[in-house]
Amino acid sequence: MREDIKARLDEYTRMINDTLSVIGTDIPEGTKSVCDAINYSLNIGGKRLRPVLALEFCRMCGGDVSSSLRSACAIELVHTYSLIHDDLPCMDDDDYRRGKESCHKRFGEDIALLAGDALNSYAFEVISSEAEKGNISYETGIKLISVLSSHIGVDGMVGGQVIDLESEGKNIPLKTLDSLQEKKTGALIEAACLMGCILAGVEKDYSSYLLAKRYAMCLGKAFQIVDDILDVEGSFEELGKPIGSDKEQGKCTYVTALGLDGAKEKAKELTDNAIKYLSGFEDNEFLTELTKELLIRKK
Amino acid sequence: MREDIKARLDEYTRMINDTLSVIGTDIPEGTKSVCDAINYSLNIGGKRLRPVLALEFCRMCGGDVSSSLRSACAIELVHTYSLIHDDLPCMDDDDYRRGKESCHKRFGEDIALLAGDALNSYAFEVISSEAEKGNISYETGIKLISVLSSHIGVDGMVGGQVIDLESEGKNIPLKTLDSLQEKKTGALIEAACLMGCILAGVEKDYSSYLLAKRYAMCLGKAFQIVDDILDVEGSFEELGKPIGSDKEQGKCTYVTALGLDGAKEKAKELTDNAIKYLSGFEDNEFLTELTKELLIRKK
Repeated sequence: MREDIKARLDEYTRMINDTLSVIGTDIPEGTKSVCDAINYSLNIGGKRLRPVLALEFCRMCGGDVSSSLRSACAIELVHTYSLIHDDLPCMDDDDYRRGKESCHKRFGEDIALLAGDALNSYAFEVISSEAEKGNISYETGIKLISVLSSHIGVDGMVGGQVIDLESEGKNIPLKTLDSLQEKKTGALIEAACLMGCILAGVEKDYSSYLLAKRYAMCLGKAFQIVDDILDVEGSFEELGKPIGSDKEQGKCTYVTALGLDGAKEKAKELTDNAIKYLSGFEDNEFLTELTKELLIRKK
Repeated sequence: MREDIKARLDEYTRMINDTLSVIGTDIPEGTKSVCDAINYSLNIGGKRLRPVLALEFCRMCGGDVSSSLRSACAIELVHTYSLIHDDLPCMDDDDYRRGKESCHKRFGEDIALLAGDALNSYAFEVISSEAEKGNISYETGIKLISVLSSHIGVDGMVGGQVIDLESEGKNIPLKTLDSLQEKKTGALIEAACLMGCILAGVEKDYSSYLLAKRYAMCLGKAFQIVDDILDVEGSFEELGKPIGSDKEQGKCTYVTALGLDGAKEKAKELTDNAIKYLSGFEDNEFLTELTKELLIRKK
């Protein structure tokens, strides 16, 4: 990665990690176990891609990054909840996540379930408290909550997980795989980009809002295809989780649908398209380079 | 129950059920199973106590019931999510709820988990969309979301469930039992009453807000004590779930802590106190009678 791009990414990551570590310090009496589980899962080395996207769209659209920080971190709370629940035995039953024990493996299923539940609603608590404190306006708060909540329910992330569950062991058409992944992975990435625009005061019918949406769609899909490729070609050491779990679980992926070479070609094409949509923004260099990096990532 | 009180309660219940049935009709492609699970759990005969409390506090404080209806129903979405997750095998492992199969028994654990997750965030989607539509102001929307979210996380409902889990099979002091139940059951009841005040434009430092909070604390505890009594003295037919499940799970309850007579006395005392706080509101007759009815309920 280019030095200047890496430096900016590190700066974003540091700001996000600092904010998340403050978010997790209030431990009401008797709830240490669930707070430990929350903090454990929040801090086992996520890429922080979603809040980075939100903050960078906010910045590119002329918004203020520092007053948007906590609202952007709300997206990481939702992402973390979804990973905890996705790893549960009744779901993907994954024992490892980012090279460490998954939440339920470490804290038990009951505590992991509750940690995910708390993180889900906590995202909305964080955004509403930002509005109450005046860091963002009431209107901005409502718009952020509207976009986030509508992207993670049955018509978004959860819907994608349902289609995923019901597709296991089946040969599904590419159209269904697209719809599954647009919701399961794509919806939250889209929410992150749109929340960045909203934090900068961009209205829904502005062209930059629409460009952000199109960018997010391409990036989300490219991101998922790379995930699928890494599940075949990656290593446990770099990924922090066992390779081949998709195949083991009988999941249809972009690799099974398009072949390894076809999947790589598709990811490249989507990345190129994503970058084209960024040309509508001034000062798009950081995100352009980051988008390229996500294509060649090893984890 | 007095005829006029019953008529008003029936009218509230009808309005709430109508609203909830509309809320559950949008079924995105491929997500029928989870939408069925959501609608099944939303419609297996809950008392709708929490939205009724919200609407009645709204009315008593001079607010408009019809424009508050959807926001009040958001509380029932959260309540339903909590019941679905609470029944899961890794939690209380209950096969019955309100005389019917619990959600995971009917739809599988994975779908039940996702149904609860979707309902959790859907509550915030409903409130934010009410603000976007102009049925409530942005400020009211943010305040509702702030109160609801802060009452259901680690310092509220989920926190209570954690203390509950960690108290199983132990003899806990009455103070811990109080704290457990104030959070597990009391917090959402309190949120409902406060959301009613907010919907009527009542500020946090108004006396009616404080009275609503005190009322809710007494009612919440009385409600839980009656629940504990019914788990000993009730019948499967009326309750719709097996009797004696608390004892079987080694749970400390108000009956184990105070004895059956002591628990009944305490519930009566709390109900009397709750009613005293209502005297600060004009036109409090309906809620006064309802509060009395909740003490002698059979389910």
